[in-house]
Amino acid sequence: MTKERSDVVNIGILGCANIARKNVRAVSLSEDNIVVTAVASRHKEKAEAFIKSNPGLAGATAYGSYEALLADPNVDAVYLPLPAGLHVEWVKKAAAAGKHVLCEKPIALTLEGAENIIRACEQAGVQFMDGTMWVHNARTAEMASAIRTDLGQLKSVISAFAFPAPEAFLKDDVRCKPELDGLGCLGDLGWYCTRASLWANAYEPPTAVQAHAGALRNEAGVLMHVGATLTWADGRRASFECSFDRAPVQQLEVAGTKGVLELSDFVIPTHEDTGAYRLRDAAFLAELDVAVTQRTTEHQVPMQRQQEVGMWEDFARFCG
Amino acid sequence: MTKERSDVVNIGILGCANIARKNVRAVSLSEDNIVVTAVASRHKEKAEAFIKSNPGLAGATAYGSYEALLADPNVDAVYLPLPAGLHVEWVKKAAAAGKHVLCEKPIALTLEGAENIIRACEQAGVQFMDGTMWVHNARTAEMASAIRTDLGQLKSVISAFAFPAPEAFLKDDVRCKPELDGLGCLGDLGWYCTRASLWANAYEPPTAVQAHAGALRNEAGVLMHVGATLTWADGRRASFECSFDRAPVQQLEVAGTKGVLELSDFVIPTHEDTGAYRLRDAAFLAELDVAVTQRTTEHQVPMQRQQEVGMWEDFARFCG
Repeated sequence: MTKERSDVVNIGILGCANIARKNVRAVSLSEDNIVVTAVASRHKEKAEAFIKSNPGLAGATAYGSYEALLADPNVDAVYLPLPAGLHVEWVKKAAAAGKHVLCEKPIALTLEGAENIIRACEQAGVQFMDGTMWVHNARTAEMASAIRTDLGQLKSVISAFAFPAPEAFLKDDVRCKPELDGLGCLGDLGWYCTRASLWANAYEPPTAVQAHAGALRNEAGVLMHVGATLTWADGRRASFECSFDRAPVQQLEVAGTKGVLELSDFVIPTHEDTGAYRLRDAAFLAELDVAVTQRTTEHQVPMQRQQEVGMWEDFARFCG
Repeated sequence: MTKERSDVVNIGILGCANIARKNVRAVSLSEDNIVVTAVASRHKEKAEAFIKSNPGLAGATAYGSYEALLADPNVDAVYLPLPAGLHVEWVKKAAAAGKHVLCEKPIALTLEGAENIIRACEQAGVQFMDGTMWVHNARTAEMASAIRTDLGQLKSVISAFAFPAPEAFLKDDVRCKPELDGLGCLGDLGWYCTRASLWANAYEPPTAVQAHAGALRNEAGVLMHVGATLTWADGRRASFECSFDRAPVQQLEVAGTKGVLELSDFVIPTHEDTGAYRLRDAAFLAELDVAVTQRTTEHQVPMQRQQEVGMWEDFARFCG
């Protein structure tokens, strides 16, 4: 609350999900004029407890209903860490109240829901952004440039994102419940893989998408593992796997005719202050195929701001 | 030819393909009693030129037909670097002549062809082995042990093998011609990915196999890119991609509930004398998900013999 208040973007948070804590920290780490000024929960005590337990929220207003927060004229934009099943309703209400929206992923459970969200924000003239942090990383910008300059003709994206969900998660987490985050691992993890697949292809939509055999669902029908392939008419393809049932991976490989870009922590960087990626050239094997001549160069990108801070600063700029 | 001749295994080579040079080198590097004693080509001069140009073949007999080599009583076993389309015919003839067989991959273009090959060798009482080198690597043995002890319950295998084939290869190489190596990249590269998928699963056959959308073929119908998923009834899966149209990759990741094994040169090791692989544990993210806590350990395996030397020594032992 010590930030200069002239052109500040005041954020209200709808819901007290865990991921909101990381975002509150991001907003307070930013040197830009973004401030969290209000937190709403269906139980006011929960909002109050959230404000107390998160550094950087001193002075924020606690609301006992989402509607009350949306009625607060001091709130410029809302952050929605609610389960995906509630997004369409609350993005529409936030847009109708004239608030810009930063919405957690997956933004909706269906294409129709996503289109409703976008339309509502367009009609209300408010900014909409999803909460995908890694695209706001300085490393990501450098990698996008490397994809254009070092890989030749783009051919392939291969990605995987997984973690071993503990019993409690599989039983109680919203991401395992059909009425809340009904897309399961596809919405929670595959979201990032599809984003990476599109990002590497300059957001050109694929011509076809195929789910792989072997998808796994829990008893309620929610995806616990799934793979898929996206294809483009000129032979480009992207395949990915996302899973709640195996040791962690967050691997991304982008390959062209002349080179390969690869990293092992594309969603959440291993360290906050520096990000690594590797480039490999198109050389292959030595005489008689007895050794590899492909060269790998390691790249380290300093990150002056965390990617989630970058996300909030980009969002605040768009709102301005 | 300086090796002791008591229990020596005498090898005859049918055909002078490039890959045979690597294998001649492997046999001569071996300290075991294996010797290449004969080389056959449909043109005797070609066999003579091959003998002259390959160190370690001095004294070997040149034959102008495959039949003539098979009739040589001094030949104990034959090596078949012929195109896959010729394998069934020549493995059957070699087996009928009482020769053990080491056959290049893919061993056949169809399941029926492969079954014919196995049956012919069984009936003749001769040894059959395919030319997959990496399974004879000391690193592979260590990794198999790590998979059993460090990964928990096995869940996933993801692999990719590709190289950017030059124009001349796409036009003239046997691997691009339907009547020769008609499986294209699937037989040449996907062979290793399916082997890795089965190897990691202790060679338990999958219950289903699905080709991914987006396979690419040349004008003759030969595969230039394809991906596939193998699934097992208990939720295990293996997916792979193999391609002739992109910068090289030879990536293998084996994941279980408690850990991940990963390497970037699973088919042909980067160096001949040492092989690397990585193990990652099942830890994931730090407090607030702002950094990664998963630990990676790098493993280096000394390789006293090249994997292709290991292959020949294993083959010679099986023949004995």
